[in-house]
Amino acid sequence: MPTLSFPHDAQHFGGQPIAQLAAAHGTPFYAYDSQRIIQRIADLRAALPRSIGIHYAIKANPFPPLLRLMAGQVDGVDIASAGELELALQAGIVPGRISFAGPGKRDSELARALAAGVLVNAESEGELLRLAAIAQERGQAARVALRVNPAFELKGSGMRMGGGPRPFGIDEEMIPGLLAGWSRFGRHLEFAGLHIFAGSQNLSGESIAAAQHASYQLALRLAAFAPTPIKTLNLGGGFGIPYFPHESALDLAPISKALSEIAADAAQRLPHAALHLELGRYLVGEAGIYVTRIIDKKVSRGHTYLVTDGGLNHHLAASGNFGQVIRRNYPVAIIHAHDAQKVGAGNTATTECSSVVGPLCTPLDLLADKVDLPRAEPGDLCVIFQSGAYGASASPQGFLSHPAVLEVLL
Amino acid sequence: MPTLSFPHDAQHFGGQPIAQLAAAHGTPFYAYDSQRIIQRIADLRAALPRSIGIHYAIKANPFPPLLRLMAGQVDGVDIASAGELELALQAGIVPGRISFAGPGKRDSELARALAAGVLVNAESEGELLRLAAIAQERGQAARVALRVNPAFELKGSGMRMGGGPRPFGIDEEMIPGLLAGWSRFGRHLEFAGLHIFAGSQNLSGESIAAAQHASYQLALRLAAFAPTPIKTLNLGGGFGIPYFPHESALDLAPISKALSEIAADAAQRLPHAALHLELGRYLVGEAGIYVTRIIDKKVSRGHTYLVTDGGLNHHLAASGNFGQVIRRNYPVAIIHAHDAQKVGAGNTATTECSSVVGPLCTPLDLLADKVDLPRAEPGDLCVIFQSGAYGASASPQGFLSHPAVLEVLL
Repeated sequence: MPTLSFPHDAQHFGGQPIAQLAAAHGTPFYAYDSQRIIQRIADLRAALPRSIGIHYAIKANPFPPLLRLMAGQVDGVDIASAGELELALQAGIVPGRISFAGPGKRDSELARALAAGVLVNAESEGELLRLAAIAQERGQAARVALRVNPAFELKGSGMRMGGGPRPFGIDEEMIPGLLAGWSRFGRHLEFAGLHIFAGSQNLSGESIAAAQHASYQLALRLAAFAPTPIKTLNLGGGFGIPYFPHESALDLAPISKALSEIAADAAQRLPHAALHLELGRYLVGEAGIYVTRIIDKKVSRGHTYLVTDGGLNHHLAASGNFGQVIRRNYPVAIIHAHDAQKVGAGNTATTECSSVVGPLCTPLDLLADKVDLPRAEPGDLCVIFQSGAYGASASPQGFLSHPAVLEVLL
Repeated sequence: MPTLSFPHDAQHFGGQPIAQLAAAHGTPFYAYDSQRIIQRIADLRAALPRSIGIHYAIKANPFPPLLRLMAGQVDGVDIASAGELELALQAGIVPGRISFAGPGKRDSELARALAAGVLVNAESEGELLRLAAIAQERGQAARVALRVNPAFELKGSGMRMGGGPRPFGIDEEMIPGLLAGWSRFGRHLEFAGLHIFAGSQNLSGESIAAAQHASYQLALRLAAFAPTPIKTLNLGGGFGIPYFPHESALDLAPISKALSEIAADAAQRLPHAALHLELGRYLVGEAGIYVTRIIDKKVSRGHTYLVTDGGLNHHLAASGNFGQVIRRNYPVAIIHAHDAQKVGAGNTATTECSSVVGPLCTPLDLLADKVDLPRAEPGDLCVIFQSGAYGASASPQGFLSHPAVLEVLL
């Protein structure tokens, strides 16, 4: 069983002293560890049957050097906009390995996807009709999978993506009718398969395994109505990473068992189908840190504030303003600027209850609230871990007109 | 008493049909109404004594054409970063009318402020020492006001900025000692005055008036310790705008009365001081709309979703992910694409409970949840009002790699 991957050695990242990275790049910055990403994918492949592909959801982290790394590591990528399509192509990912999901695809985006030849995961009947019209007009065939909104949900997910009414995908109840009447979309829509995504950021291997079984059974039922055999089956993702002390790393064992059973069955019953998972956060989330430098330290009415040069403009999720109902602190560490020169490191043993805030003029700019941290001073670094996904690209970088954050792939 | 300024005519904005704006600019976009901003400032001036200046807090909306408009309307601007300093200078605002607040000013930002000759609102003793060192090194004098963290708070504020421990400003209890020992900062720090900011987004004129009285009394007490007479006194802001149905527009009458009393008293007791308010949201918040077009309409298990081409990547606050504890819907309206061609407008009378969602693959991308809206179809527009402040610049525009949002000043 994997262990919680918070760093035992908070002073180093990607094999380098973080203080040295900060000196080289200036602060604030994000750093991503190539080796950790490669290792994560290797570990995952070791746990999965060989026939289950791994796709990367670009939205988790679209940093171009990271995407180029991913291009050599995963079997495909999932995009969510025409912008992500360009990023994927620029990273050297061939169109046959790209699928495009998203509930609000513009006509121009559908046309671009068609021109590029990527798989479109259709999210509604209306989108199918629009895509069919565009394909007919251009005389090109569009490869289409149906994104299914399952009637079940992935229990205990950070974000519910299935079960009940949802803006994502087509209700499973509507799929048989849609498939049975596929000819109404004309000969320009080529049915390729199904995309079933039941939830995200889930830390229960048992729940994910149960959702995978349910997704596969649903795919089998729906395949009976398909005009052609299923060629692609996206079983979704949902693999979470631990952020908070009460959370543990995902146990892959139940998932491994479930996918082995599914893969063996699919070889018989869906012989033309390539099965894959779509993962974002799980592949990159633990492979990234955000590093800030403490500009000021102040004590206000007995409470210590460490004011850093980075804040919610770069890392909205760490400030608790990105979907969290209850604000919790990301794992943080202090790195003393002058440890190298010290004779003893005794000073680091003294802790102090502190809040880490960013430079913005808003109480929302809170990176860590009332945590016991080693006593820190201006010039020291504050590092936020578990920051490889939904960090730089998911933050309001223009807020208060600070410079865009630097990102480096180690 | 001002009335709630949600539009009675939701079809027009800035004197133009919104449908026409959408046709001209494409969607999604923000539009800001110059006349409404000018009128808001004129109304405010009419309610205030002439000696109270009005400053604009650029962070509310830094769109350059809007800043150029502001340059001719307000008495000064408040900046919160070196980036905002450049924007202010580019908008033609002279350094003598610019003040710089923010809890985490970098040395490079302090040096830039010094070089430009703007007023620095110091937020800590440490910042004063850093600024003094930079000023000495450069042989230049820095104009400095002290930002005070008052012991009182502005009651009922959307965001608490004073009272209790805060990262903003210097606790009022510490100011007398700091002022009495001003000479330790050397001759390069020129004491200019005080900045007292007790809260923001407040809709009670009585509460704001009370905070203004308390701020003024605090300034008088602290002035007794100052090395030189107070030349500038920033009484803060806190003027809110209504976003939700249970909220009413701010009543300026109590504020008008309080500031008249304060201005008359200050003429005697702080004869060298220029008093001003610092307002952001109140000046521009109601003068902006965000306009999206409906791409898809889908019914999932009985619930209607209108999927638009704009979402939280452009308007984080409307999605409820920017400091709101309880998510509430911003005021929204539907504009039918083909109303002009219709014989009757009877169709608009039919309402439908709908949720408006953006194009992003996340349940967070919710612009309006379960609202009764006129029945809408793909191609129709969905307009979000009260969107002039903390909109485009406070949103994660890079999220999912969609294009940056267009902004227009009408």
